[in-house]
Amino acid sequence: MGANSNRVEDFSRHNGSTTTTTTTLKVSTEIPMPPPEAMEIHNVCLPPQKTTFQKLKHRLSEIFFPDDPLYRFKKQTWCKKLVLGLQFLFPIFQWGPEYNLSLFRSDIISGLTIASLAIPQGISYAKLANLPPIVGLYSSFVPPLIYSVLGSSRHLAVGPVSIASLVMGTMLSESVSPVEEPILHLKLAFTATFFAGLFQASLGLLRLGFVIDFLSKATLIGFMAGAAVIVSLQQLKGLLGIVHFTGKMQLIPVMTSVFDHRKEWSWQTIVLGSIFLLFLLTTRHISTRKPKLFWVSAAAPLTSVILSTLLVFCIKSKPHGISIIGHLQKGLNPPSLNMLYFNGQYLALAIKTGIITGILSLTEGIAVGRTFASLRNYQVDGNKEMMAIGLMNMAGCCTSCYVTTGSFSRSAVNYNAGAQTAVSNIVLATTVLVTLLFLMPLFYYTPNVILGAIIITAVIGLIDYQAAYKLWKVDKLDFLACVCSFFGVLFISVPLGLAIAVGVSVFKILLHVTRPNTVVLGNIPRTEIYQSLNRYREASRVRSFLILAIESPIYFANSTYLQERILRWVREEEERIKANRESTLKCIIIDMTAVTAIDTSGIDMVRELRKMLEKRSLQLVLVNPVGSVTEKLHHSKILESFGMNAFYLTVGKAVADISASWKPQP
Amino acid sequence: MGANSNRVEDFSRHNGSTTTTTTTLKVSTEIPMPPPEAMEIHNVCLPPQKTTFQKLKHRLSEIFFPDDPLYRFKKQTWCKKLVLGLQFLFPIFQWGPEYNLSLFRSDIISGLTIASLAIPQGISYAKLANLPPIVGLYSSFVPPLIYSVLGSSRHLAVGPVSIASLVMGTMLSESVSPVEEPILHLKLAFTATFFAGLFQASLGLLRLGFVIDFLSKATLIGFMAGAAVIVSLQQLKGLLGIVHFTGKMQLIPVMTSVFDHRKEWSWQTIVLGSIFLLFLLTTRHISTRKPKLFWVSAAAPLTSVILSTLLVFCIKSKPHGISIIGHLQKGLNPPSLNMLYFNGQYLALAIKTGIITGILSLTEGIAVGRTFASLRNYQVDGNKEMMAIGLMNMAGCCTSCYVTTGSFSRSAVNYNAGAQTAVSNIVLATTVLVTLLFLMPLFYYTPNVILGAIIITAVIGLIDYQAAYKLWKVDKLDFLACVCSFFGVLFISVPLGLAIAVGVSVFKILLHVTRPNTVVLGNIPRTEIYQSLNRYREASRVRSFLILAIESPIYFANSTYLQERILRWVREEEERIKANRESTLKCIIIDMTAVTAIDTSGIDMVRELRKMLEKRSLQLVLVNPVGSVTEKLHHSKILESFGMNAFYLTVGKAVADISASWKPQP
Repeated sequence: MGANSNRVEDFSRHNGSTTTTTTTLKVSTEIPMPPPEAMEIHNVCLPPQKTTFQKLKHRLSEIFFPDDPLYRFKKQTWCKKLVLGLQFLFPIFQWGPEYNLSLFRSDIISGLTIASLAIPQGISYAKLANLPPIVGLYSSFVPPLIYSVLGSSRHLAVGPVSIASLVMGTMLSESVSPVEEPILHLKLAFTATFFAGLFQASLGLLRLGFVIDFLSKATLIGFMAGAAVIVSLQQLKGLLGIVHFTGKMQLIPVMTSVFDHRKEWSWQTIVLGSIFLLFLLTTRHISTRKPKLFWVSAAAPLTSVILSTLLVFCIKSKPHGISIIGHLQKGLNPPSLNMLYFNGQYLALAIKTGIITGILSLTEGIAVGRTFASLRNYQVDGNKEMMAIGLMNMAGCCTSCYVTTGSFSRSAVNYNAGAQTAVSNIVLATTVLVTLLFLMPLFYYTPNVILGAIIITAVIGLIDYQAAYKLWKVDKLDFLACVCSFFGVLFISVPLGLAIAVGVSVFKILLHVTRPNTVVLGNIPRTEIYQSLNRYREASRVRSFLILAIESPIYFANSTYLQERILRWVREEEERIKANRESTLKCIIIDMTAVTAIDTSGIDMVRELRKMLEKRSLQLVLVNPVGSVTEKLHHSKILESFGMNAFYLTVGKAVADISASWKPQP
Repeated sequence: MGANSNRVEDFSRHNGSTTTTTTTLKVSTEIPMPPPEAMEIHNVCLPPQKTTFQKLKHRLSEIFFPDDPLYRFKKQTWCKKLVLGLQFLFPIFQWGPEYNLSLFRSDIISGLTIASLAIPQGISYAKLANLPPIVGLYSSFVPPLIYSVLGSSRHLAVGPVSIASLVMGTMLSESVSPVEEPILHLKLAFTATFFAGLFQASLGLLRLGFVIDFLSKATLIGFMAGAAVIVSLQQLKGLLGIVHFTGKMQLIPVMTSVFDHRKEWSWQTIVLGSIFLLFLLTTRHISTRKPKLFWVSAAAPLTSVILSTLLVFCIKSKPHGISIIGHLQKGLNPPSLNMLYFNGQYLALAIKTGIITGILSLTEGIAVGRTFASLRNYQVDGNKEMMAIGLMNMAGCCTSCYVTTGSFSRSAVNYNAGAQTAVSNIVLATTVLVTLLFLMPLFYYTPNVILGAIIITAVIGLIDYQAAYKLWKVDKLDFLACVCSFFGVLFISVPLGLAIAVGVSVFKILLHVTRPNTVVLGNIPRTEIYQSLNRYREASRVRSFLILAIESPIYFANSTYLQERILRWVREEEERIKANRESTLKCIIIDMTAVTAIDTSGIDMVRELRKMLEKRSLQLVLVNPVGSVTEKLHHSKILESFGMNAFYLTVGKAVADISASWKPQP
């Protein structure tokens, strides 16, 4: 048929910035294929030529600005640009002008609801972080105000959260005792908050938001469950009334500590704690079953605090052995800029704690924001949210606040209570303000055991065994990452558990690249479709051809493997042919559609493979290499050395063309 | 047309271990497509059902036994299996029976040639590792013998090599001074050799050979160039005759040390060194130009040693300021099992040094073996080579040898001198044996400066700037990894430089996964081919469709990005349509051919995306998901919730079918 000579080989670019492929009419006669008019041959062509600078620019814009954040500014007047810029930086200008009384009514209801939840939770979480309880209230005042101006989520309820509190408490307490050196501990907490904020804001500003994507959902399910178990066990201190408790967080020392101090157990505390824990868990159960009754669980913590405080107040004259919060100072957040700690031996600890709590709280905040945004069909810009949360923490650390973010439980209540805008956060802050100014003495008799019960109720929802079971069913390696982070957190430590889980997740990606799938394709009769022989029963081998699909980029990490694996396919195919006495193997076709990238090792592999196959008189043909791969093959002169009849756009064309070229020499 | 109802939806499996797809005849009327008889619809189907255990077994065998190492043993008699097993473990049984006199003649010539190179290089490299020179000779005796029995390469010349010597010398000397504590230093060197061997053998035994693949060629080019520069600079000590020299390896301290000790420079040493360096470099140049004259550069080091020794011997009565090797003990390798150091403060150092030199020497040995194997068209089994090199080092550490592997320069000489089998290594060992027993006193007057000149000549070939330039041209990120390892080794330290370079390489893989390409496809007229609009000029958009190809697996690391990016494509397409007043967008087709894997985050993304598009009245269709992806979509109930008309085998069928289904409601 002499088809190859017919085709113009136009791999060298002509004269412009783009290449056009040459289309030559060809007539097929033999292979089951669509009829002549569909048989034009389209060659593999190079992508439009770009300079290194253009490529770099394109790549960087894809890496850092995938969402094209400035698209709204294009083709606008200066004045409009200014307004858009303000709205971009301060989302409050976006929804502010359209704000009305009906929205305000919704926001005030939801704001008050979350305040009733936020006050007891704030005090509890501060205790979880080994900080004075009042810091929890301070942290529920300033950050919500700042978020309401900067944040783009309408439903996020901002304040301290359990995971970040736990992690900060653990990491700092392991080096500095909060009992012996309370001031230093507090200083380090504020400094860690500063670094958390700085880190979060930088991630947003440098558009490195994808860093938090590396905490996969699977990892987080395990991590949160582990953290919830640890937090709950820690509460045994309060629930049992133990005075001398371990500062460690792992399962074994905590349980040892619980049973070693059996003499300190106080039955009054246990009874009180159990009753209220049961009450809180029941209300939680009701709200989980019937989402409309969300207010039952939202009101329960404050109710418990009030009831238990009254109870303890009534029996205050008798010795009861129930420890109470005690004196809380009235007044607004004191400035704490002077408490930041920028030199000394603990600086590294503060930075490390800041970065880890920063990442964790960011992950929670963004995830919560996205969840509720998708429920109401609006978009939350990840990078902007990071900046908002980061600035909120940086402002917080100067006003006696520790790490805050959007809390899942409170945001859910906020959403269910009908919050419409970030004004609900302003209402929350106002309520906390009133509490700080006037209501502090009321908490004097609040028993610590109640705080423990509130924390347990809040974190128990983090143990999502159903999600873990789903992971097991769908993806075993995801489940492994989940289990690793769970046990890592439980038995080793929070940062190490997290690191192991991230390691497992990254390992999963690398494993997929290191040991990619190779699939033998066959033709589905009477079509031009080539599919996996193993999967599609009707697909059948094409005589004298071995058609392989490589399902991964070809990198240094897999080039040796792929070479060996392909040679093994060839060997096995030859053995099969020999056993079945079919006609000999003549051509190896590699479908490169899924080879989305190649590096220099990969290119060497292709060159080497061709040489090895040539020595066995086997032809090597590549099908449909993607743009960047074709370009690299061109730069490394492989395209030229292979010749044009080694590249085809579809497997079908390759099979047709090559078997036609064999005809003349029978 | 009512096509969808026609099709049997067979996603639930019937009753066996495999699923067959249902083929229904369909008639196309509208879209430019192949004629009726080619229009059978083939549905996306699930891969054959396997249990978790079967999947795990398959996956593990692909990870650990990709080369199916036992395939030769299948269907053989017991007796044959025994022979094959012996040949498998000891390749000497494979070529031994066919060995003849003519092969022996070739081997003896090449063996003597490499011995003339190995003796001076052995002494030099031992000095590079801060070990007594004689250890270099010991290391050229035992390991070649062991390799000749176990190794599967026919051309590898075994012995000490520059890179591993340098790294071992640096890492140990930074903690233990070889001058002040020579015995401890020697002990640590043997112990590090033990761990290097143990690590190498374990990698081979556990079939974890892919670990060394992570040292990509690009990384190695930079690393070797950096190491060569450092090694050469270190030789300034010998070449200038400096007595007090820094123990550090980085560029800056070495250069400082050179110029700080200007007073120690000895002109006699400099003259002698320069003459012989010039001589050696000239012979090297000649052999590089004319590979047939390989023996010129092969013989040069021994010639230099003999000439310079004679010269120094002649002027021994006069004060000349040229430092000499001095007394070398006659006799065979003394046993050194008692010198292994398994407890104490330096154990961690020895293990670390062992692992790093182990990896480096393994990489060199395997790469060299593969290079020459591919030139002669035979296969070297990576995992078996690892075991051979590992066992050789483990045996070596008990007989006063330090880390050895296949050296590139000596193997090249071996190959060029016509080596046919590993017998050339036996000849080499025998020559070294003779030297050790009888010729040691001859080296008494050999000047140290000659050793420096030999080392420089040996390592200068490692600076491969042409390869680096090629990297720059073909792959910028590979070039970055190369540059990082070069400067990392030069300015920071060998292990850290290496770690940075591996980090860059891994980062490259992760970056590709984190920010994958998404490409808009168009139809090439009069074909069923859908290709990138950007690359193929003749491709054109299909009205009312947006066809996207995702060029990466969908993982936790990119699911958020992909969702945002796809929504941006949709937004941009809608804007374009609005601007051009075309008919509205109705359907998004995602070509999943290159999505070779998906995890739970990815599945959530697909589900979420569909919801979001549905709210905008856009249909989402997935095309050609690969086996494992289809399976996971099935397990997570997405397949069922999407319905069958959301999955197609080719873009062409999807376009035809969907646009046909729009017809009835104009």
